[in-house]
Amino acid sequence: MEKFEVHILGCGSALPTTRHFSTTQVVHLREKLFMIDCGEGAQIQLRKTHLKFSRLNHIFISHLHGDHCFGLPGLISTFGLLKRTADLHIHSPQGLEELMTPWLNYFCRMMSYRVIFHVFDTHAPSVIYEDRSLTVTTVPLRHRIPCCGFLITEKPRPRHIIREMTDFYKVPVYDMNRIKNGEDFITSDGLVVPNHRLTRPAEPARSYAYCSDTIYDENLVPAIRGVDLLFHEATFSAADQIRARETFHTTAEQAGQIAALAGVKRLMIGHFSARYEDEHLLLREAQRVFPETILAKEMLCVDI
Amino acid sequence: MEKFEVHILGCGSALPTTRHFSTTQVVHLREKLFMIDCGEGAQIQLRKTHLKFSRLNHIFISHLHGDHCFGLPGLISTFGLLKRTADLHIHSPQGLEELMTPWLNYFCRMMSYRVIFHVFDTHAPSVIYEDRSLTVTTVPLRHRIPCCGFLITEKPRPRHIIREMTDFYKVPVYDMNRIKNGEDFITSDGLVVPNHRLTRPAEPARSYAYCSDTIYDENLVPAIRGVDLLFHEATFSAADQIRARETFHTTAEQAGQIAALAGVKRLMIGHFSARYEDEHLLLREAQRVFPETILAKEMLCVDI
Repeated sequence: MEKFEVHILGCGSALPTTRHFSTTQVVHLREKLFMIDCGEGAQIQLRKTHLKFSRLNHIFISHLHGDHCFGLPGLISTFGLLKRTADLHIHSPQGLEELMTPWLNYFCRMMSYRVIFHVFDTHAPSVIYEDRSLTVTTVPLRHRIPCCGFLITEKPRPRHIIREMTDFYKVPVYDMNRIKNGEDFITSDGLVVPNHRLTRPAEPARSYAYCSDTIYDENLVPAIRGVDLLFHEATFSAADQIRARETFHTTAEQAGQIAALAGVKRLMIGHFSARYEDEHLLLREAQRVFPETILAKEMLCVDI
Repeated sequence: MEKFEVHILGCGSALPTTRHFSTTQVVHLREKLFMIDCGEGAQIQLRKTHLKFSRLNHIFISHLHGDHCFGLPGLISTFGLLKRTADLHIHSPQGLEELMTPWLNYFCRMMSYRVIFHVFDTHAPSVIYEDRSLTVTTVPLRHRIPCCGFLITEKPRPRHIIREMTDFYKVPVYDMNRIKNGEDFITSDGLVVPNHRLTRPAEPARSYAYCSDTIYDENLVPAIRGVDLLFHEATFSAADQIRARETFHTTAEQAGQIAALAGVKRLMIGHFSARYEDEHLLLREAQRVFPETILAKEMLCVDI
């Protein structure tokens, strides 16, 4: 099966601790890398993963709070020092380009590559990236400022050829792609061989949803229904639910409720407030509602 | 003896590695903290030292290359989240305020404290900070852009009272400070007791010089003569001397030569290029010229 991994580079919230970097992730899908949020130290953490910097061409920024984008100047500079030539695309809510441009003009003169900013609307879901393998769709969230999560969905994959059957019916090589895509085969005698005799179904297309930062909001459930992995922020414990609501964040228990309502396969919680020395408190809280929960952790790599 | 420590938060150069953060230091002198340069991740590293954030009121930025100042937005934001109230002073060459202000207006709205920018001239040495305990003087360096190092010098300290003698001559308490500052004592009988009979000399005032980034430049020798500790950049090895000159950096051997010429007590080298897996190569090179050399290293604390 082709690679679909989520690498956690950071899973803390705004205040840094000795345990956590700011929330930053890299999705590794079929040899391409996609960064989600870019907190301070993102490039340092990315280096530790030994993923290839050159495979990263798209960065998705959920919202313009510093802990989700202060890693950009360093990452962009480093790409320049590494003599990158490919365009780098940064997708975010309105405002980032205006903030970044003076810095790039000053600190990153004579760059060997272009940084291209793309703005997405945070009010309605939209497909903001698409290639042969996947689509990235925004998931509007409710936070103190305009904010979106992201849904990364694999495209349907080709069916698996049953070699004995295609040999038996003498399917020519040039027909194979059509067969993999589900078409029936017609022999030289005019016999129709239905596709399901020649192939086995492909693995189902996988999906990953990233929801941070957001208040508890059941409206996002339809957008993330049934995903293989949901990352949902769990900044606070249930005991701090009032604080969570005031700051437009979620408790671990509420993250579990969203996962349960959406019928996702697995939940990963993160964006932990600095106040919790031991996040197993948050884990237990989420697991009471949704047992298939894990804690995000720096350098964790989750296979989807 | 009162505390005078240098904490190394980072000692790499522009390209981050798994071994080094960007060059950032904190000087801890008599319960006050002074940050020198502020690379990405500075606040994360500062947290690890367990030094108190509230004791840091002055940051000195040597020059406006990203690896020396990309840590500022995160640090300033965090101070805001911690409800800091004291002014934060940032001293740098011309240009930083214009770059930082739009970011602070956007990301750090409603801050509980003020950030005050101070510009220093990079052509001639000047005292840019002074309090009861120390002075900070710029040390003009030659780099690709305007750049200064910093000389931190303790002020002369009071002499030590010899208790038996002040008791013998019945020196009243209200005269003690004058005696500590070197004055003679006149008894009620008019007898002049010379100060050296009443006191022992104070420990000599200590000094620390930070020189990064710079090409090999003997002109800086007089400014740093005899310091207790010299931090000098040693980005490259002698084998890469041409590259060092082209990029206005120094080799480890050259750093040793500067230390020897200036007759400093100890040399610490840092700002290592990412190309050297093992910096002991650089250490040996410097030590051949100046044996009292040590390698900077993240979380190293050097007592002056």
